Amino acid sequence: MNAHAAVDAPLLRHDRDGVATLTLNRPGARNALSEALLDALGTELDRIAADGTVRAVVLSAAGPVFSAGHDLKEMTARRADEDRGRAYFAEVLSRCSGVMQRIVGLPQPVVAAVEGVATAAGCQLVASCDLAVAGEDARFCTPGVHIGLFCSTPMVALSRNLSPKHAMEMLLLGEMIPPADAARMGLVNRVVPRGGALEEASRLASLIAAKSALTLRTGKRAFYEQLEMGLSDAYEHASRVMVENMLARDAEEGIGAFMEKREPSWEGR
Amino acid sequence: MNAHAAVDAPLLRHDRDGVATLTLNRPGARNALSEALLDALGTELDRIAADGTVRAVVLSAAGPVFSAGHDLKEMTARRADEDRGRAYFAEVLSRCSGVMQRIVGLPQPVVAAVEGVATAAGCQLVASCDLAVAGEDARFCTPGVHIGLFCSTPMVALSRNLSPKHAMEMLLLGEMIPPADAARMGLVNRVVPRGGALEEASRLASLIAAKSALTLRTGKRAFYEQLEMGLSDAYEHASRVMVENMLARDAEEGIGAFMEKREPSWEGR
Amino acid sequence: MNAHAAVDAPLLRHDRDGVATLTLNRPGARNALSEALLDALGTELDRIAADGTVRAVVLSAAGPVFSAGHDLKEMTARRADEDRGRAYFAEVLSRCSGVMQRIVGLPQPVVAAVEGVATAAGCQLVASCDLAVAGEDARFCTPGVHIGLFCSTPMVALSRNLSPKHAMEMLLLGEMIPPADAARMGLVNRVVPRGGALEEASRLASLIAAKSALTLRTGKRAFYEQLEMGLSDAYEHASRVMVENMLARDAEEGIGAFMEKREPSWEGR
Repeated sequence: MNAHAAVDAPLLRHDRDGVATLTLNRPGARNALSEALLDALGTELDRIAADGTVRAVVLSAAGPVFSAGHDLKEMTARRADEDRGRAYFAEVLSRCSGVMQRIVGLPQPVVAAVEGVATAAGCQLVASCDLAVAGEDARFCTPGVHIGLFCSTPMVALSRNLSPKHAMEMLLLGEMIPPADAARMGLVNRVVPRGGALEEASRLASLIAAKSALTLRTGKRAFYEQLEMGLSDAYEHASRVMVENMLARDAEEGIGAFMEKREPSWEGR
Repeated sequence: MNAHAAVDAPLLRHDRDGVATLTLNRPGARNALSEALLDALGTELDRIAADGTVRAVVLSAAGPVFSAGHDLKEMTARRADEDRGRAYFAEVLSRCSGVMQRIVGLPQPVVAAVEGVATAAGCQLVASCDLAVAGEDARFCTPGVHIGLFCSTPMVALSRNLSPKHAMEMLLLGEMIPPADAARMGLVNRVVPRGGALEEASRLASLIAAKSALTLRTGKRAFYEQLEMGLSDAYEHASRVMVENMLARDAEEGIGAFMEKREPSWEGR
Repeated sequence: MNAHAAVDAPLLRHDRDGVATLTLNRPGARNALSEALLDALGTELDRIAADGTVRAVVLSAAGPVFSAGHDLKEMTARRADEDRGRAYFAEVLSRCSGVMQRIVGLPQPVVAAVEGVATAAGCQLVASCDLAVAGEDARFCTPGVHIGLFCSTPMVALSRNLSPKHAMEMLLLGEMIPPADAARMGLVNRVVPRGGALEEASRLASLIAAKSALTLRTGKRAFYEQLEMGLSDAYEHASRVMVENMLARDAEEGIGAFMEKREPSWEGR
């Protein structure tokens, strides 16, 4: 067990038994994704990617709001720049999209634990995770349409989770979606009683962390790669990946353990 | 408020408060998509695209049937052509696909209001809208398989709304799908009591019409563009779109209004 | 009615009224997809593709397990090969992916009838069919993660049926999914009382088999082709396909019969 960050840092990390729990820690600012928080997230995800002791990640948040998305005050202040903020906005969105894609590209599976509202880039964060658990009082929303700024980058992640009409409903109406609807539409996997999201997400992460890190890394990467291919290319790619996986030590051990009805012992534990 | 078309025209249009309501008006012919109706739809969609006063569209139908799809009598008559109708069929399908894609490409969001049956190209029309509301007695069907003519163009729209097995079930069995199933499968957003689809669709369209036209246009266009891209390209594209959106007057006004807790005033109202 | 295979063959085939029912017949080995079974499946699918009397296929299984996926014993034995099994594994996965794609590419629609558990490549088999019916006690699982071998080729089919979070849940947790959840997520079309899957799948196959073989072949092929295209290309392709379909004898007969309110008589019956 360790904790890498100060209590007043924008992001906390706590590791236990192969699960790294990241906590958005700007409760006073509704966990808005400030530059500092985006940077901290990016840095910590890079550290986790290189950390062989972490086999699953939970993404959680402190306080009653999961995340309100971008920090509008921070962004508005830059309208005073000479270019009216253009360079800054481009930089922030690139940084934010980079963090979202780093979640998708992270070797370890990431489980979101959502209590309270997740709006705009906060909702995108949930959509970008591999799995998501929501408490009964969680709400999901892409409200940009109300303030003249369509949630265009959040919709990239959203529309890869939801069918087009469901995604469009969220984007055009900007209404708060309760977790039962989010589950039905494919944005979250499980709904639990209020306050129980972190516990359930941690439970799922622990189940995942008990598996072979190589296998998880191999499978997650191939999942998102093949998703963008046609059927025939996808099969060729997945077959190549699976042959390598089959020849790896952990598959030999895992299959052997299964056939001998014993617990497997994965590499690097 | 205005009405562009004669009462016996195949398509009616009625505008109010930024919402244009189009009504398929061939109730005696089950609103079959005749050449005349397809042309009227195409023409009116082009007019709406260029009409800055329209910020949302409702697509409705007169009479007990939403739309029975192509006009089989009109098509069958052309089997007497020298080429057995080939040129004509190609022309009609091209015209029909053009109308469907014009809905997708329309700057304004389109909400279908469905009562009664929507079959074949009529079902495709619903699938092509951004949102859809159905009355409890609505039914959805791609029955081409019963008459030896697979609903191949309708399936393009259908399979972009439904998962493959759901789409295949509709296409291979050609059965009437009740609205609760259509909602579950992603073809419609909301089911309302019989006779209430137009009212609810108009309500949603009004909520949308209260937003910035620029923002809606920007967002809808980017939505369908990024949907066809890989994740990385989608993020690049959406980020570029969002920077421009952020620099536009309506976003400055909208974010300002939000931070000052007042109602925004969009451009061109 | 005919039966092509011996009772102890790994695959049985039984034809009736245009429906070919294939039965995985290794109940003692939990219908594991051995080389012999994969070969038999491939061969029989090729025969069916060329058989004008078959208009729909049911894929069923003998015994309490639908299919446990690859034959781990057969695969493990080849670790003794000089190349540690590399060539063999590549060959088996290529063969297996070939069978899955042959189902997708088969001119006739295929309906899975699932009782008991369908795991790994067994689950992939269900995902690869056009439609699927499950008995209430059926279970779906991609458990590779438990044995260090991620279900990478099964996920190709799975992720084309389910939304990403649902597919990831199955792949990362490897839990048994009951049929109600499988239906909700899009993996199966219908859930029936225990023991009733074959009857319901056969009923659906019979409904399909009453249609024009040309129309089914045309539509199914175009369905999977257009699914991999952008919207505009998809419409061009589907329009071309539909013009040819319209000019074919079965469409002329089918539309004529419909307008004359009589039963159609399809070619080749």
